[in-house]
Amino acid sequence: MYSFMNDYSEGAHPRILNALLETNLEQTQGYGEDIYCQKAAELIRQRIGRTDLAIHFLSGGTQTNLTALSAFLRPYEAAIAADTGHILVHETGAIEATGHKVISIPGSDGKINPQRIQVALEIHKDEHMVKPKLVYISNPTEIGTIYHKSELEELSRFCNKNNLYLYIDGARLGSALCSPENDLSLADLGVLADAFYIGGTKNGALLGEALVISNDALKEDFRFHLKQKGAMLAKGRVLGIQFLELFKDDLYFDLAKHANTMADRLQNAFCNQGFQLLTHSATNQIFPILPDSLIGKMQKKYSFSVWSKIDQTHSVVRFVTSWATPEEAVINFIEDLKNLTK
Amino acid sequence: MYSFMNDYSEGAHPRILNALLETNLEQTQGYGEDIYCQKAAELIRQRIGRTDLAIHFLSGGTQTNLTALSAFLRPYEAAIAADTGHILVHETGAIEATGHKVISIPGSDGKINPQRIQVALEIHKDEHMVKPKLVYISNPTEIGTIYHKSELEELSRFCNKNNLYLYIDGARLGSALCSPENDLSLADLGVLADAFYIGGTKNGALLGEALVISNDALKEDFRFHLKQKGAMLAKGRVLGIQFLELFKDDLYFDLAKHANTMADRLQNAFCNQGFQLLTHSATNQIFPILPDSLIGKMQKKYSFSVWSKIDQTHSVVRFVTSWATPEEAVINFIEDLKNLTK
Amino acid sequence: MYSFMNDYSEGAHPRILNALLETNLEQTQGYGEDIYCQKAAELIRQRIGRTDLAIHFLSGGTQTNLTALSAFLRPYEAAIAADTGHILVHETGAIEATGHKVISIPGSDGKINPQRIQVALEIHKDEHMVKPKLVYISNPTEIGTIYHKSELEELSRFCNKNNLYLYIDGARLGSALCSPENDLSLADLGVLADAFYIGGTKNGALLGEALVISNDALKEDFRFHLKQKGAMLAKGRVLGIQFLELFKDDLYFDLAKHANTMADRLQNAFCNQGFQLLTHSATNQIFPILPDSLIGKMQKKYSFSVWSKIDQTHSVVRFVTSWATPEEAVINFIEDLKNLTK
Amino acid sequence: MYSFMNDYSEGAHPRILNALLETNLEQTQGYGEDIYCQKAAELIRQRIGRTDLAIHFLSGGTQTNLTALSAFLRPYEAAIAADTGHILVHETGAIEATGHKVISIPGSDGKINPQRIQVALEIHKDEHMVKPKLVYISNPTEIGTIYHKSELEELSRFCNKNNLYLYIDGARLGSALCSPENDLSLADLGVLADAFYIGGTKNGALLGEALVISNDALKEDFRFHLKQKGAMLAKGRVLGIQFLELFKDDLYFDLAKHANTMADRLQNAFCNQGFQLLTHSATNQIFPILPDSLIGKMQKKYSFSVWSKIDQTHSVVRFVTSWATPEEAVINFIEDLKNLTK
Repeated sequence: MYSFMNDYSEGAHPRILNALLETNLEQTQGYGEDIYCQKAAELIRQRIGRTDLAIHFLSGGTQTNLTALSAFLRPYEAAIAADTGHILVHETGAIEATGHKVISIPGSDGKINPQRIQVALEIHKDEHMVKPKLVYISNPTEIGTIYHKSELEELSRFCNKNNLYLYIDGARLGSALCSPENDLSLADLGVLADAFYIGGTKNGALLGEALVISNDALKEDFRFHLKQKGAMLAKGRVLGIQFLELFKDDLYFDLAKHANTMADRLQNAFCNQGFQLLTHSATNQIFPILPDSLIGKMQKKYSFSVWSKIDQTHSVVRFVTSWATPEEAVINFIEDLKNLTK
Repeated sequence: MYSFMNDYSEGAHPRILNALLETNLEQTQGYGEDIYCQKAAELIRQRIGRTDLAIHFLSGGTQTNLTALSAFLRPYEAAIAADTGHILVHETGAIEATGHKVISIPGSDGKINPQRIQVALEIHKDEHMVKPKLVYISNPTEIGTIYHKSELEELSRFCNKNNLYLYIDGARLGSALCSPENDLSLADLGVLADAFYIGGTKNGALLGEALVISNDALKEDFRFHLKQKGAMLAKGRVLGIQFLELFKDDLYFDLAKHANTMADRLQNAFCNQGFQLLTHSATNQIFPILPDSLIGKMQKKYSFSVWSKIDQTHSVVRFVTSWATPEEAVINFIEDLKNLTK
Repeated sequence: MYSFMNDYSEGAHPRILNALLETNLEQTQGYGEDIYCQKAAELIRQRIGRTDLAIHFLSGGTQTNLTALSAFLRPYEAAIAADTGHILVHETGAIEATGHKVISIPGSDGKINPQRIQVALEIHKDEHMVKPKLVYISNPTEIGTIYHKSELEELSRFCNKNNLYLYIDGARLGSALCSPENDLSLADLGVLADAFYIGGTKNGALLGEALVISNDALKEDFRFHLKQKGAMLAKGRVLGIQFLELFKDDLYFDLAKHANTMADRLQNAFCNQGFQLLTHSATNQIFPILPDSLIGKMQKKYSFSVWSKIDQTHSVVRFVTSWATPEEAVINFIEDLKNLTK
Repeated sequence: MYSFMNDYSEGAHPRILNALLETNLEQTQGYGEDIYCQKAAELIRQRIGRTDLAIHFLSGGTQTNLTALSAFLRPYEAAIAADTGHILVHETGAIEATGHKVISIPGSDGKINPQRIQVALEIHKDEHMVKPKLVYISNPTEIGTIYHKSELEELSRFCNKNNLYLYIDGARLGSALCSPENDLSLADLGVLADAFYIGGTKNGALLGEALVISNDALKEDFRFHLKQKGAMLAKGRVLGIQFLELFKDDLYFDLAKHANTMADRLQNAFCNQGFQLLTHSATNQIFPILPDSLIGKMQKKYSFSVWSKIDQTHSVVRFVTSWATPEEAVINFIEDLKNLTK
């Protein structure tokens, strides 16, 4: 049984484990103030091309989102997110648990735009309603689509003009940036977003996300928030060492590329067999629409998510690839698919 | 420069890293529902001798405390802790950030007893005050002392009688249980406490704490709390694999014993040189009182914490040992100490 | 200029002020433990026909909703409300500020039904999402419609079956219960809802809402919640005296009837002049659709809310009547309306 | 049975009820935006002698404290209060429920000073601890003592220098300002504090506190906080009308003077009979130390609080007077006291 269930089914890329091994007995400062966290942050700043970024390493995406948003917002301020947004749907009310409403607006292919945000702003007009203050987007989105540079620029301009923060959830940011359709760079994100995070957990790390804050107003005392929310690891080096390894050369991007390539092959295979897609994906999650009978047969050899029912006899399924997906597994799967759909 | 600053200066015990390596490419379920978390939980249940324990793996102590206490308490209920208690002093208001007051009562050597709790209960008598509902203790305490079985039994009886939960912060639980002065077992904790956690981060793991809930009323829906507080790792296996390694034989206890032995040697050395102690420690943190001039000289070769001023010319310092402290470092230090105090 | 803006433009019904005057110098217990609160609660229990109800007096609707819902829900549990629900739209995130998500479902005429709730339940299926636990409805709804007995029975059965609490926001409950189309009684609410509140502020009181809790599981220690949320007035008698006056005979219902009758006359007048309604209202808020030109003319003599644009030249307006609306004001308005639309 | 239990045993001063009556049928804006709130705020600004003050009317002390402090503090920031402080002891963790720790420091006669605050600041030195940001004092204190101008100036200078807000809980502010020993004016408070509130509930109003914010940084969007915390009354005029009446001449101060005079007579009577005081009070709460046998006899005719045990046979009791305390009741009591202690 091979699993295409998600991109966190395995451990870490061998180079990362090796880095942990090699540094294992060195003594360092605790709580993220070690030399590895400093070096990793420095490398990320260089990649983004700004020396003034505050960078913090956290252990997971929900933790990063809740720590950042609760730090950035005053009590009556709210975040705006697409109806498919991770903070709206899949974080068990983590943002609300810190006291903040998340306003849902309709997304298109998981993405939002200024027009839709404008509608929300117009509704929220006085002190009887929360005050929208932060726009949350995911890149790639929860359904595998990506923001193009022009879209992000437009969002960023709109947010600036309307005194909104723009925050990007980058749980799978590597996959977005390495998509063949992508025209955004880390440097762009450093300019266009007030804060964003570079996901490690889903791109080869054991665990870890790198939160990048470029808006000066959001940097102050951030380590207090980290500690208060339980997000400051005693052995913070564990995160620093991993991100150092990911960014000391192009490992972070190479891993994402591999995942994308594997997903692309799967997606093509489904298309070649004549299946429709929920949406065309250029990242490491794909969403073909399959007959339920075929799904049942495939489940004997493969794990994957059944995403939603389409009609009486068809469902959308989700296949996810990762740095760890062997080319062979993809080849075998495609072979099996062909046989099953003969 | 050798550091006795804390017990999280190094990485993980080699066997733990090795376990991560060996299992690295296996595919498992995410979010702590993998086979390693299940096996590790099973081993811990066996050690404690109860099959009905809920066991969850979290990534750090503050996270464990805030997730557990906010899950266990209703909005107006409060925790009681010694004035030196970690949740009162060193967690940046993490418990209050979830809405709960922590009531401070005076400790003796970092420990609390029914008499002192009783005073707090008598003060909090109506709805104009919070309702004390949970007693928080650390074992060992923040100053290295431990609870004896009779003390914990007395506390447990008192809590039962007064409808209070007893919660034990076991960030350094291994050190307490392996102290030569200890008469408590994991099995005792499973009976005497409503919940406690077994600290991994400070006893050989890269990161990780195992929360053990024995009171049925506190078990329900706990995974929702984990997720909401950002405490559920996508690769939850990282925690399970480590605890499995720690508990599949006596590694957890062996590591703690080593740390204790190293601390004991240091403590004896200080005593032999005629120095007083803040309190006699039987665990891996020791608190000698030293002349400031000597401290200055020692700091040229060693890192350690200066805990507090005692008088114009003396301070309490804290030395912490761990599984990773080489015997040689201790021998060298004792030699240096003798030379410096000649 | 006469205002149909809302039902809290004036002070209190004269009998209520008189009751405050007559009791003014009596000495009573503070914090809602006085004889007037006790008597008022007793009268309300008699009206509902149950002796086991917990009744608390609070000073406003948002305060009542936030105190009740945060008391009733565990941290990861959420409320479900119609997309027009007051807690979703017009309470500045008060519920979220206590840590709880409010799930929006589409309403029909401001009302929700089991089918729509069922959809929400099916989506929220594991610990990565909040757990729906309480259904919030308003009766009358925010757009003046009311729940019929069969609808409420169906909702109540559904909630019981699905382990959900049913909570009714009764900010204008008098108007609902006195609607000519109503077939619900206070006694029905006492059976069908787990908790509801009887609004005083919008039906003749200076301020005050009576929260009625019938589900035993929700009663415990409720006064702690009141105090913690700032909802316990030192001179709690101010609320008790008012509700005593409202319920010692039929004053509460007589006031609501008057408001409804006045609204009905206005609504009929609009219909007689050929205007459409956003929805037919049987309570004290009406929503005619008018040409913007007419609205402009009416605003020279009358205040009222412009609710929303319908098309280029028409808008929905809201007229609200109350116990204090003089028949003469209504007659004059209708006369003016006729003249303006000649 | 006459009650000296507290200063909220009766209703409102007759002039206040009369003002409510006289304005009763006027139509006004809701939610505190009416002409009465505006006029009352204007009068208070004039009394304080500053035109730039933000003034909001709330319904009770706990509500005012929790709304203000949660608005003023960022999530990791804490308030500092005397160990007898109302927010620490008697508000059911209302401040903690908004996420903030309250740091307790020892008071002297219920008061705190820069030296004691300095100690707290020195302990809280990094991100593992909350960051002290606001100093909370009550004037008069919870045990009837008052701050002198020099003390408040010293506190204010210290707070400015240390980047701390100074907040004054004025639940009984009238009594403090009208104490024969007082040398502070409302104008002084407007300069020395960042925010304070003028208590109405305990000085003749039915309910109501006037929050005065002088620090510009704390004013922004405050009405959002009011609404979110359930502190914005629909008929906000109820509060405005009362404060207008209290401040349109010297009523507020006259009522407080009467209360103080009555308390002073009682205190003198106790002293004349040879009884000790817990502390000398110059306000409307007095704390004589009495034999338990005498207390028992007095309780047959009078209600008052037994504050705490002093020794086997003596207790501190609390007598509170108010605007409503008839001179005759005081004369009678003194007569009874003399007879009982003959």
